[in-house]
Amino acid sequence: MKASKAKSTSALSALGRRIEEPPISWLMKQTLDHPHVISLAAGFTDNASLPVRETRMILRELLAEAEAGQAALQYGAAAGEPTLRRFTAQDLQIFDTDRSVRRHMPPYLPENTLITHGSQQLLYMVTEALCDEGDIVLVEDPTYFVYLGIAQSRAIECRGVPLLDDGLDLEALDRKLAALKRSGDLRRVKMLYLVTYLQNPTGITTRFEKKVAALELLRRYERHAGHPLYLVEDGAYRELRFAGRDERSALAAKGFGERVIYTSTYSKPFATGIRVGFGILPEPLFTRVLRIKGNHDFGTANLLQQILVRAIASSRYEMHLADLHVRYAAKAAVMKRAMREHFPDWVQWREPEGGLYYWARLPQRCKSGLKSKLFKTALAQDVLYVPGELCYADDPTRPKPNHEMRISFGGASLEDIAEGIAQLGRVLKAC
Amino acid sequence: MKASKAKSTSALSALGRRIEEPPISWLMKQTLDHPHVISLAAGFTDNASLPVRETRMILRELLAEAEAGQAALQYGAAAGEPTLRRFTAQDLQIFDTDRSVRRHMPPYLPENTLITHGSQQLLYMVTEALCDEGDIVLVEDPTYFVYLGIAQSRAIECRGVPLLDDGLDLEALDRKLAALKRSGDLRRVKMLYLVTYLQNPTGITTRFEKKVAALELLRRYERHAGHPLYLVEDGAYRELRFAGRDERSALAAKGFGERVIYTSTYSKPFATGIRVGFGILPEPLFTRVLRIKGNHDFGTANLLQQILVRAIASSRYEMHLADLHVRYAAKAAVMKRAMREHFPDWVQWREPEGGLYYWARLPQRCKSGLKSKLFKTALAQDVLYVPGELCYADDPTRPKPNHEMRISFGGASLEDIAEGIAQLGRVLKAC
Repeated sequence: MKASKAKSTSALSALGRRIEEPPISWLMKQTLDHPHVISLAAGFTDNASLPVRETRMILRELLAEAEAGQAALQYGAAAGEPTLRRFTAQDLQIFDTDRSVRRHMPPYLPENTLITHGSQQLLYMVTEALCDEGDIVLVEDPTYFVYLGIAQSRAIECRGVPLLDDGLDLEALDRKLAALKRSGDLRRVKMLYLVTYLQNPTGITTRFEKKVAALELLRRYERHAGHPLYLVEDGAYRELRFAGRDERSALAAKGFGERVIYTSTYSKPFATGIRVGFGILPEPLFTRVLRIKGNHDFGTANLLQQILVRAIASSRYEMHLADLHVRYAAKAAVMKRAMREHFPDWVQWREPEGGLYYWARLPQRCKSGLKSKLFKTALAQDVLYVPGELCYADDPTRPKPNHEMRISFGGASLEDIAEGIAQLGRVLKAC
Repeated sequence: MKASKAKSTSALSALGRRIEEPPISWLMKQTLDHPHVISLAAGFTDNASLPVRETRMILRELLAEAEAGQAALQYGAAAGEPTLRRFTAQDLQIFDTDRSVRRHMPPYLPENTLITHGSQQLLYMVTEALCDEGDIVLVEDPTYFVYLGIAQSRAIECRGVPLLDDGLDLEALDRKLAALKRSGDLRRVKMLYLVTYLQNPTGITTRFEKKVAALELLRRYERHAGHPLYLVEDGAYRELRFAGRDERSALAAKGFGERVIYTSTYSKPFATGIRVGFGILPEPLFTRVLRIKGNHDFGTANLLQQILVRAIASSRYEMHLADLHVRYAAKAAVMKRAMREHFPDWVQWREPEGGLYYWARLPQRCKSGLKSKLFKTALAQDVLYVPGELCYADDPTRPKPNHEMRISFGGASLEDIAEGIAQLGRVLKAC
């Protein structure tokens, strides 16, 4: 309402008028207003785990000689540092091969690999390249809520497809596509966006076979859409696995190379202050997104990319990751013990195999949203969580669930985890 | 033409179909195809000048203690590192005050300062926040050509306003605005984009009085536009001045605080591999652009910002800048001598007072464009320049000049400058 009122006298674009405050900003403001709050909301990584010593050593080496140092401090190419593009494509291919029956796989090409300022930037640019106002993106129910913010700002409609324990509900996807076909809306659908590894927020990992089945489904509907239907696979948490087993990425799906966009990040596994993500994209998308990248910022800061090249080449990256797994497994275990002790029986949650989050389900009648008594009481008691409702698209075809919570063990200390969960348990019991 | 043909079967958005290859990519490819080429085209900074030792020392300090190191490797706030926001606003205010008659000035607020991945990102986001398809941006004739690429991709029309030796031709601006008013197009105009310091490509610095006059003009036409008309001032080269005198920024214009967006960068003065730029924006723009920033990448890489905080606090930034001025002045002088010796008399150019470029004018009949004999011969002789035509908007109200060249002394070595200019002189004489 504000937007339309402002229209006549504001110079803002439609996007400028439309874009809402991201819920995460609002949540972060709460931590400022409540200085003693224990935030189980933020997706921050563990402060003590950050590779200060490793980064110091890498930078000492990198900046020791003038030539390498100068190269790191100069502009690079818009697509990214060539060695990092090669490492990225190669390592991903090894990742997808080692863990599977060996067989002929399509090569993952450095030429199709784009380095970005975090995987978030890749998601933004892919959306720019594919979606106009009024287009539709299929997402998981629930999904990564910042993606919903991108869509909101660009007037893109998101429709939710339920998640099962091993990934997307394929029958529901089929039904959704069929309904969109019937209503004549399939031509507005551009992509299916999946967070397939240790999903944010649920922790669910999608089985490889389900990715292939989703790609087959999308292909079946392409004729009615009149254009390719892409699968955008977000593997941001893939390397944060401390239990269970990895699944191959959709890039390994035979015959679907032209339809898969894979994106992930080096920031969360290594250091969030070093914002480097990447995408592997088929043509014609790669070229278009590269041009958009040129317009955004000409290319990702070279120094950050050089740090990662050396981290990977020296195996410091991998060693750091091993350390991280131990650390997060311990934090998850502390949270589990606290939840067992303090949460009422009627709260449902699964043990995550990695990532940064527990996803807890309350009985339907027990609202957890920003306006709920539960949320407000928790905040008054200095505990902050992410209300589940924020992770659901505004999908007109179903009511938005409002009885879940994303609880992060990423940023909080072990003591704060234990205390925060105990506090939250007391609030839940009083609910 | 390709775009419309592809429309029916491509999933690309209008932007995805529309976006053209940036000329700079094409130019860079030429340097790959001609391995011996001397590039006087690239806007690279001087490799030997890059602050390798300074950055090494800063990072050694920064990463010496766990706590500061961890903070640098963690996520920061979307708006930027608080200290860097404060330094940016303060230093800019001092810059604008010292060089002027002291008087009451509006405070430059850290709260309105946004740190970005290069000033390019700020330009992109401001354009997103202000302009819809079909909107009009007034630019200088000639202007920063990457901005024209942003506009092209977003279907924004640019109209050129001629530049005089001391900045914008105000009478031409008035005529342009009057014509737009007459034709009913003023409501589509959102901003005037000026590169006011040692302009890319001409090297021209705009006098402060002209900025104030431009703001007054814009205000006069606001009533007819029906909304604010913003001045976006791009000071990217401001700190690269090695001669002449600085001018105050438009931020210092009394009574126009609500209409000025100022943007500049730390990358070019310090290290282009450390991509950090900034903007100072009035409301409601600041809030909207901050939200867009959240969607792009949640915030500029913290490590890069921390490097700059320490560079500025320790005065290494300023000392490096002094060094840079000596270096670029020397390179400009070498280029000047070579141009005097090798260029024909009929080539006009002015000595720049900073920045990275000479701007050379040939007689009108002597074409310099990408398709010209001159450009092709130069490339065959292994010299690359930026054709002036690339720096002009596609403005239907005037023919596009095609007889100028941007010649950079930024990236090339002293030897290459001398040899490249000698070669270019021979090509020009044969023209």
